[in-house]
Amino acid sequence: MIAEIIAVGSEMLTPHRQDTNSLALTAELNQLGVQVAFKTIIGDSQKHLTGATLMALHRADIVVFSGGLGPTEDDLTRNAVAAALEKKLERDPKLVLALKQRFAARKQEMPEINLRQADVIEGAESLPNANGSAPGQFLDTVHNGYRKLLILLPGPPREQAPMFKEQCVPKLRALLPQRHIATRSLRIALAPESQIDARVSPIYKQYPDVDTTILFNQQGEIQLHFACSKPTQEEAEDRVEELAGKCAQELDDLVFAHEGESLEEVVLLMLGMRHLTLSTAESCTGGLVAERLTRIPGSSRAFLGGAVVYSDELKTRFANVPKNLIRTHGAVSREVAVSLAEGIRSTTGTDIGIGITGIAGPGGATLNKPVGRVYVALASAEGSEVQELNLTGERERVRWFSSQHALDMLRRHLM
Amino acid sequence: MIAEIIAVGSEMLTPHRQDTNSLALTAELNQLGVQVAFKTIIGDSQKHLTGATLMALHRADIVVFSGGLGPTEDDLTRNAVAAALEKKLERDPKLVLALKQRFAARKQEMPEINLRQADVIEGAESLPNANGSAPGQFLDTVHNGYRKLLILLPGPPREQAPMFKEQCVPKLRALLPQRHIATRSLRIALAPESQIDARVSPIYKQYPDVDTTILFNQQGEIQLHFACSKPTQEEAEDRVEELAGKCAQELDDLVFAHEGESLEEVVLLMLGMRHLTLSTAESCTGGLVAERLTRIPGSSRAFLGGAVVYSDELKTRFANVPKNLIRTHGAVSREVAVSLAEGIRSTTGTDIGIGITGIAGPGGATLNKPVGRVYVALASAEGSEVQELNLTGERERVRWFSSQHALDMLRRHLM
Repeated sequence: MIAEIIAVGSEMLTPHRQDTNSLALTAELNQLGVQVAFKTIIGDSQKHLTGATLMALHRADIVVFSGGLGPTEDDLTRNAVAAALEKKLERDPKLVLALKQRFAARKQEMPEINLRQADVIEGAESLPNANGSAPGQFLDTVHNGYRKLLILLPGPPREQAPMFKEQCVPKLRALLPQRHIATRSLRIALAPESQIDARVSPIYKQYPDVDTTILFNQQGEIQLHFACSKPTQEEAEDRVEELAGKCAQELDDLVFAHEGESLEEVVLLMLGMRHLTLSTAESCTGGLVAERLTRIPGSSRAFLGGAVVYSDELKTRFANVPKNLIRTHGAVSREVAVSLAEGIRSTTGTDIGIGITGIAGPGGATLNKPVGRVYVALASAEGSEVQELNLTGERERVRWFSSQHALDMLRRHLM
Repeated sequence: MIAEIIAVGSEMLTPHRQDTNSLALTAELNQLGVQVAFKTIIGDSQKHLTGATLMALHRADIVVFSGGLGPTEDDLTRNAVAAALEKKLERDPKLVLALKQRFAARKQEMPEINLRQADVIEGAESLPNANGSAPGQFLDTVHNGYRKLLILLPGPPREQAPMFKEQCVPKLRALLPQRHIATRSLRIALAPESQIDARVSPIYKQYPDVDTTILFNQQGEIQLHFACSKPTQEEAEDRVEELAGKCAQELDDLVFAHEGESLEEVVLLMLGMRHLTLSTAESCTGGLVAERLTRIPGSSRAFLGGAVVYSDELKTRFANVPKNLIRTHGAVSREVAVSLAEGIRSTTGTDIGIGITGIAGPGGATLNKPVGRVYVALASAEGSEVQELNLTGERERVRWFSSQHALDMLRRHLM
């Protein structure tokens, strides 16, 4: 079964905004065994939208529309889909009543134009919207001799996501051939891309029944995704489990997550299991490591805090870095990184301290120290370790990779 | 002139990855007076891609392809476009030579399959790629009696962006009717969306020749974009200048940027102009304010650093918050926020200190203090101010809006 997702809205054709709903829709559809083969983004034009609908009906079995169900004249999805199918729109008295009640509950009068939201394509089922005024629609129909499923969803994610998950997924599951799909993923930090593929491709090529995807991102992470469909769930689970296990064994400690956890979650979990506490003293990353860790709920159990020490004075004040150490070696040096890690560890009384100092650019380079030179240090009861990084790219990239190296250094220390 | 962008690559049809190149392409095309009316995302299937190309040739004047120009069997853009146009692919001996030299320079032998990258669609001009092995292609042709421009670009952003900007934009400018386009934008933080539209719509409706777009994002920011096309650049500039000026006057201090600057850039600029220094003591935001400020090159001139004080002990150690103040009022309180701001200001010796404490969730709520309750304080030589926030939404949203309020509070203080 092949699906097309059509995102409707002129704002998604500007340089400022893009469709993001389709990612969550794709995840749900894949779980049902449906492949998304086309995505179209289209403006608020009935002519364009009708044409795109006809194209989608021609090349896909399931067409999901996202957006264009509001009450204004720009909201044309209902009309365009009805036109493409050569079906009528019928005003549903029950929906009219529900809309009127919605406005009455807010002590507002309903503008006449909102009645458009009660228009349902002939033969379609209306989908109640718990989080907004636009009902969705679900249509199981025949077009040019082929069976087609059409789903119309409101655009705002907090309306669309629950409507699709709670109402459409069960309907699709009942209509589609029963499939049992198992998925696994492995996440890897900071490894050369070519090396990973060279090591795992001899393994996954022996599993032609498992769909293996290797994704490289710009943030120093590689993901291996495995998906398999079998007559029973157990067979599917066994098969992905076996392949994922072999790949994980081959890649050994490069793999930081076997269940899709983030690197932040993994290090916090490891700290928690060992009852260890952590603090950070960050110069060039400006708080990025602390910010990444504190994104995770419950991080306060292991991460107590730290300092952002952009100026030399604050390196001394908050992390006890001796003034003459900075004078002798420079603020960006192996010695100062270690001193930051040891100093923050002792001033905060944590088990582990992390220190980062470097040149994020674009300014700040010296003859001996180019942009991208960063030192990351870790101090613990067993002593200190420090790593010299020579990163390439823009300021944002240098900062991100510095934080990535710091978190991975911590992970390896905790292993 | 209407354009369609076709992004090619099966990875962009997974839940893990999406097309982002089209945003920069759209910005460049808009500057040429070309509207992007369609975006299609399609997998590595010659049948699907040929069909999508035919559809694009039917509905658009300019078709830009992004990706699928690599050397592997999955790279099908050249073949699919040639098939849709019913044109031949011709192997260009000059490109063959260039490819061989590229490999020779790296002391590698070129695999036979890489020769595919030297295949050029009949009549197309080849575009050299300074940052990779895949040349682009530019074709000015007639299809079914209509003139069509087709552009094939490599997928990686650092190859695509310079190729389009440096090679395609000049070609398009020479071919397209001469247009003079001026643009302006205003950025607004933390204002109710409906209020902004109500205040500016009576103004921009008097300028039907200026294209006005209001964009709301999920990050507490509203952007007003103005674009105008006139026979001369001066006329276009005058017109957007006049409208942007009137809207800015109406919105007064809600507008934080008139030239597209970010909120971080604006506050750092204001601090710099007044020769003031800043420090932060962050609890629930975990370093997010520091991290946002230090994204900006040169931020070290005004921002000296600060502390991430997740634990109560660190609030006392780094920002001198009296232990009994925390005992009496709780760590999440107006009093502790002020004490954090004043304490970090005095321990760091900066002109201004910012303190943030709150409950980001999902845990941590008490009977009197729900998730989303945050206190943001600012201390300066003139005294201290504090704001109570009651934010809704997930942890990430609470943290982001807290940082947004802190930066906007600082901006207003500096005005």
